Parts: sequence; C-alpha cells; structure tokens
Amino acid sequence: MGEDGKIGMTASYETIITRLDGNVLAATFQAPPLNLIGPEVVRDLVALLDELSAPTAPRVVIFDSADADFFFPHVDLTKVAEYTAEAAKAGGPGDASLGMLFRKLSRLPAVTIAKLRGRARGAGSEFLLACDMRFAARENAILSQPEVGIGTPPGAGGIQHLTRLLGRGRALEAVLTSSDFDADLAERYGWVNRAVPDAELDELVAGIAARIGGFPRDALIAAKSAINAISLPTPAEVRADAALFQQLVRGEKATQRTAELFKQGLQSRGATELALGEALGNLPAVD
Amino acid sequence: MGEDGKIGMTASYETIITRLDGNVLAATFQAPPLNLIGPEVVRDLVALLDELSAPTAPRVVIFDSADADFFFPHVDLTKVAEYTAEAAKAGGPGDASLGMLFRKLSRLPAVTIAKLRGRARGAGSEFLLACDMRFAARENAILSQPEVGIGTPPGAGGIQHLTRLLGRGRALEAVLTSSDFDADLAERYGWVNRAVPDAELDELVAGIAARIGGFPRDALIAAKSAINAISLPTPAEVRADAALFQQLVRGEKATQRTAELFKQGLQSRGATELALGEALGNLPAVD
Amino acid sequence: MGEDGKIGMTASYETIITRLDGNVLAATFQAPPLNLIGPEVVRDLVALLDELSAPTAPRVVIFDSADADFFFPHVDLTKVAEYTAEAAKAGGPGDASLGMLFRKLSRLPAVTIAKLRGRARGAGSEFLLACDMRFAARENAILSQPEVGIGTPPGAGGIQHLTRLLGRGRALEAVLTSSDFDADLAERYGWVNRAVPDAELDELVAGIAARIGGFPRDALIAAKSAINAISLPTPAEVRADAALFQQLVRGEKATQRTAELFKQGLQSRGATELALGEALGNLPAVD
Repeated sequence: MGEDGKIGMTASYETIITRLDGNVLAATFQAPPLNLIGPEVVRDLVALLDELSAPTAPRVVIFDSADADFFFPHVDLTKVAEYTAEAAKAGGPGDASLGMLFRKLSRLPAVTIAKLRGRARGAGSEFLLACDMRFAARENAILSQPEVGIGTPPGAGGIQHLTRLLGRGRALEAVLTSSDFDADLAERYGWVNRAVPDAELDELVAGIAARIGGFPRDALIAAKSAINAISLPTPAEVRADAALFQQLVRGEKATQRTAELFKQGLQSRGATELALGEALGNLPAVD
Repeated sequence: MGEDGKIGMTASYETIITRLDGNVLAATFQAPPLNLIGPEVVRDLVALLDELSAPTAPRVVIFDSADADFFFPHVDLTKVAEYTAEAAKAGGPGDASLGMLFRKLSRLPAVTIAKLRGRARGAGSEFLLACDMRFAARENAILSQPEVGIGTPPGAGGIQHLTRLLGRGRALEAVLTSSDFDADLAERYGWVNRAVPDAELDELVAGIAARIGGFPRDALIAAKSAINAISLPTPAEVRADAALFQQLVRGEKATQRTAELFKQGLQSRGATELALGEALGNLPAVD
Repeated sequence: MGEDGKIGMTASYETIITRLDGNVLAATFQAPPLNLIGPEVVRDLVALLDELSAPTAPRVVIFDSADADFFFPHVDLTKVAEYTAEAAKAGGPGDASLGMLFRKLSRLPAVTIAKLRGRARGAGSEFLLACDMRFAARENAILSQPEVGIGTPPGAGGIQHLTRLLGRGRALEAVLTSSDFDADLAERYGWVNRAVPDAELDELVAGIAARIGGFPRDALIAAKSAINAISLPTPAEVRADAALFQQLVRGEKATQRTAELFKQGLQSRGATELALGEALGNLPAVD
C-alpha cells in the first residue's frame, strides 16, 4: 500500500502486491512459481473485490502480473474444488464459481484496467474479459481459451464475453480451436482494446488511469452501470457455463487429456506452458 | 433546395442549408459561430425530420457541417431546458429529449449518411451514431463523448450505440475516458463505418448516396426496419439515459466543472473547444 | 467419399463432391455452369445436413467451391418456388425457406468452416454466414447482399447475421448499398473471420480443421451450442425475413429489375455476374 494512501485500503495480500497512488490502485499478481489461479489467488481476489466494493475505495485499479511470461496461465487443475470453495465466499447461493466472482469484478464501483504481458489463458483470459478494459503488449501478449482442447467449454465467462465482443464466427474460432492468439490478432478480433508496443504500454495505461481517476465518481459509476446493463451476461448464463465446466472438467476425456499434459510439464515452467496452444494440437485425437 | 426538386421539400431552415439532387438531399448544418446544438438547431432538426417522414420525401440524406472545425461541438450547455423543449415537439409524451429525437432520426423512412470533418462531441457524436452510416475524414475528424469528464453519463444514445457497436471494453474506454478519438481509432473501434482521406470523402459519400437513391424505396425501408429491430435501443433505454443526464448535468459537480471550462473558453472558438479532450484531463480532480 | 472413411458417410451427391479425411469432411460445391443455388444444390444440401446431424458423422466440415470465380453467385431466380420446396424437406412446418435450412446448418453437431474464393452473393453470402467460421482469399473473394438493389431485403439470414457481426452502421451500409465487398473490407467489417493470401488459405483452413477434428466431440458441441444460444437469430426472426423476401422478390419492382438484369446476362458466365455490384448501380433508378 502506498504511503500516500488517503483512501482506506488496509488489507495486504499474499499473492497481490498493491500500491496506491492518489485515486489509482496498482494491483500486481505474484503467485510463484507460475501465477496459477489457485485457492490462494482466488482467496486474495475475493478479499480485494470486497475492499474495492466500498464507496471510499480507489476508483481505478490497474491489474498486471509480476511474472513477465505469465499473467495467469490458467486455473490450478489439481485444485478445482479448493479454488471454487474460495470463490464461493464472494457471494450468495449460486455464486460458487469463478464465473460469478468475475461477474462481481465486472460490476465493481471502480474502473478496472488490465495490462497484459505474457500469457493469459483460460480463466486468465476470462479474468481480463471481466475487467473494464484490456491493453496488451504487442511483442509478447498471448490470449487463449484452451478448454475445448482439454475437454470442456470455458466456464468462467469466456463464452459470454467473446461471443458478444468478437461475434459468432470469431468467437467460435477462438473457443473451438483453443489456439494461442497473439496481441495483434486479439486486437483485430476485439479480444483486447488495443495492442501497443511493450515500451508504450505502461505510459498508455497510467495515463488512462490517472485521467479517469480525476473524474467524478458518480458519473463514472452511472456510465459503467448503464454499459453493463447492455453488455454483461445474466447470472443464469454465467451459472450455466460454470456448471457445465465443473462437470466436464472432471469427465473422462478431460481427465485423460489433462493427465497427458501433466506428463509433458503442465503447470511447470517450460515448453508446454509457454506453448500450450501447440501442445494441445499435438495431443492424440479423441472422439 | 435544388431547382430540380421534383420531390416536395418545401421548408427552409435557419441553421440547415438543404439542396436536393434527384433522390438525395444534402443537409449542411450552419449555426455560427460554433455549430452548437442549441434551441435553433434542434427546432430545425425537428422540422426537417418531420418533412423527411413523408412518404414522398427524398430517400437519402447526407448530413455535413459548414464549419470545417466543428460538425457539432456538443449541446449549448447554457440552454439545456430550451433545446429540450424544442426536442419535445418531435413526439409524444416521454419524448422530451435529444435521445428520443435521435431515435426518431434512426427510424426515418429515409437513409441517412453522415460525413464527418472536424469535431463531433457529446450530442454531436450521438447525432452521428443515430444516422444510418458514418464516414470520416482521416486527417481531421474527431469523435468523443466528453460527458463523464464533466460529470454525467452521455444522455442521447451514446451509451446505447457505442456499447452495441464497439463492445463492452471499448465502449467503456470511450465513455469513461471522455477522450478525443481520431478517425483511424474510431474506425478500428467501429465508431464510424470508415475513415478515408479527406480528399476522397465527398466522392465516396456521393457515390453511396446516388447508388442507394436509385434503389426501390420499399426494399430500402424494409431492410432498414429489419436491421433497426435488432440493433436500436428501446424507448425505455433511451428515456432512462436521458433522465439521468438531465439530472446529473445540473448537479453540483457538473455545474462546477462546466463553470471552470467556461472560464477557459468553452463554447467559444479557441483552444479549449479545439482540444476539449485535453482540457477535460487538466481539470482539477474531484471525488 | 475417401476410402479411409471410417465414419459412416454413405450418400453421394450430384452437386457436392465429398472427401473424408479422418474426422474432417471436405465438401466442394460443383453445380455447373455457375454454381447457382437452385433445386439441385438445395436438395443435396438438405441430404448432407441430414447426414451430418448423425452422432457418428465427421465433426468438422470444410466447404468450398469447384468454381474459382463463383462460390455461390446467388439463388436461381427462375426457380424460387422449386428450391424453396426442396428446402422445406429439411424440417417441420414453418421451415420452408433457405433461412431455416441455413439455421439448421448453424446448429449442426459438427463444426463448419467455409473457404471462400470468388463470389458469394445473396444466399451465397448467407450460406457462409451460417457456417461457424469463414476464411477468404484476399486476392479474389467478393461478398455481397445484392437483394435491396433488386428490390427486396435479404431473406435467408443476411439481415440477422450482418447486424450482429458488423453492427448497425456497417450492416446498413452492406445491405442498403448492395455493393461488392472485397476480402479486406469484409475482414475489417467482420463479415469473414480473416482474409489471407490465396496461397495460404488452404493450409490455414486445413490446419484449423485437423486441429478441431482431434478435440473431444462433446466439448466442441457444448461450446458451439452455448455460443449459438447467444448469437443465433430466433426461428421467428428467420421466418419473418424469409416471408418478406418471398413476397417482395415476386413484386413488380423486383420482377422488372430482375428482367433487366437477365437481358444483361444474369445467371450466365460473364460481365454482369462477375461485376454484379456494378450492374446493380447502373440499373435505372426507380421509386
């Protein structure tokens, strides 16, 4: 927490480094060795969203990652039950899913901006899609929804957001191919607001955040709410996607394919995680 | 009015120069000194839309501006009550807003094409968004929704159209930053159909208008109606945005920030209006 | 049918050449002299969609054309009643339209990829829009909805898909101008997923198809269904567009304009079909 923190941000987090600068909070995910979305990250995110829901919270948040290669590689596939239990603490009945947690993120009374370097796959991509804006480093950002290649549709908002942002044809391509998308193609398709040179990314995002941070809070919140009313999926849609994911990710095919990927180094730093899109394409074909 | 006007366009307007060429009406806004959307422009627009609603009216209208720097800078902020009273004359109860007037524009039984040079901000951008198509000069066109920087969400359709055209992330960026968008970025985001070199803009738009002007009217209207049925906001959505704008624009923060901008030359020809996006970013931060 | 066809594709078709390679079916339309969508093509398409609805059918289909100039020029305008009668065989009551046949295509439990070289106009464009993905050869692909220039709105899904994919302004431009769109503009507007050099098109599509073909079928189908639930038009919307088309295409103006185009060589190989967008613009203006 910055020393100049006039706004009441008091918590500290094991996996999120926060720094407050005026009305702008910088939140950097740091969960070594790989920034997997596991129980610890979800626990901290639940707490941070809770704090950001307060009326005196910072009105802008910039999310990035301390790991240059991985913003979020994906969820920790060995701990689906555990991180889901943490996500459940964010809301009421029916909210036991990353999808509902990310929907809460989308509805925060604060403006959220994601700054993407490295890989954001699966729920990592879905975290970014739940933010209000996304800017990506042209040289190294990679986005993908690898779930179908494993054996389940994406379950935490990817289906909903990509269909609305990219349109039917490009959303089907992104989701059904489970391919890695570089920053330029992600920008052309609308997955991110803009791809910019890595050297310009920090300044662009800092400028947008500082600008918005000086604007009247009630206007920001009212405008965001009005846009959300048109563009966010319903809770029923999010819950249906989450239920299907939680069922199929435990199914026989996904279990087999995940086991095969673990043999190749899944969830370790190395070639499989760096080029997961390629690894999925090389798995044995299955019915 | 062109002398060849076989179609019955009889009115003349104080702030709109009209010329009829076959089935195509050219309508040029000329409201010196700045082309502000005030009571006179709205009165004339109400009358023109009325005339264009007739079954014998021209089937294509090209809108542009006589002012090279300003298509429409925004509404006249000293006359919100007055121009709203003029807008109310366009429809029935509940229609007392620019938003509902622009919705009527979107539903005209004529095809409307906006040709943008210079700045279209606030309700100026929303006027363009209500037209059927928008083409912009690459060198000088600027679009923005500056309302949030002043202290209110956009109220005349900007929220509705930008969310549907740009998607959630880019609409949030456009609306929450209140930034000036140049023609190329506006094209990439979908705010305009296309950005073209200034020297090619007139020919492009004239060609499209003449082409459409020769096509069967009932097919044009039926196709436009079918597309509108999918893509236009409901009257309830438009009215809710208008009500919120009319409330917040008179609120304490918007009043203070507007007063500060007037001290800097708002609504006068000069640096503040030319670079309003920058001026908004330099206003003192507020809660 | 490929000799390696382990999956049960048994039918053969007069106007569709099929080759099975593992889980991927290549289906090439060949209906000389011009690949018009007439009763034979529709009959074969009805049968193919029926076969592809089986749970053991190939899970990926690549559609292309044996004619380098024409993917599908448009429907056979001399046989609207006949091809509509064939389309009716695909479904239940209310399904007597290409629009409902194409909606069935969109909902197949197989992934459909269109590879576009040459012209796809009218129902040809609508066939592509009903596929899951569309890739176009930059040098020669042309898309258009010429219907309004003839005298009716598009009737087989074009209104629905283009409005959702392109947004209101660009959909109105595409539909109301009836212009030819080249591959680059089609890509910028979202009409196709991507435009790529002709020399790279086959490899790109083959790679995507093979990749998807190895992924678990239930995940593919569940993901496609979820995206369809958000993005496909309702049967009522499709039926309304079809009814209006079937009425207006037989109306006086469309009949006259079609007759004029036939005098110029419509439905023959030659300048009028190659440059139909231009021919439409040169027809006499009409009210």
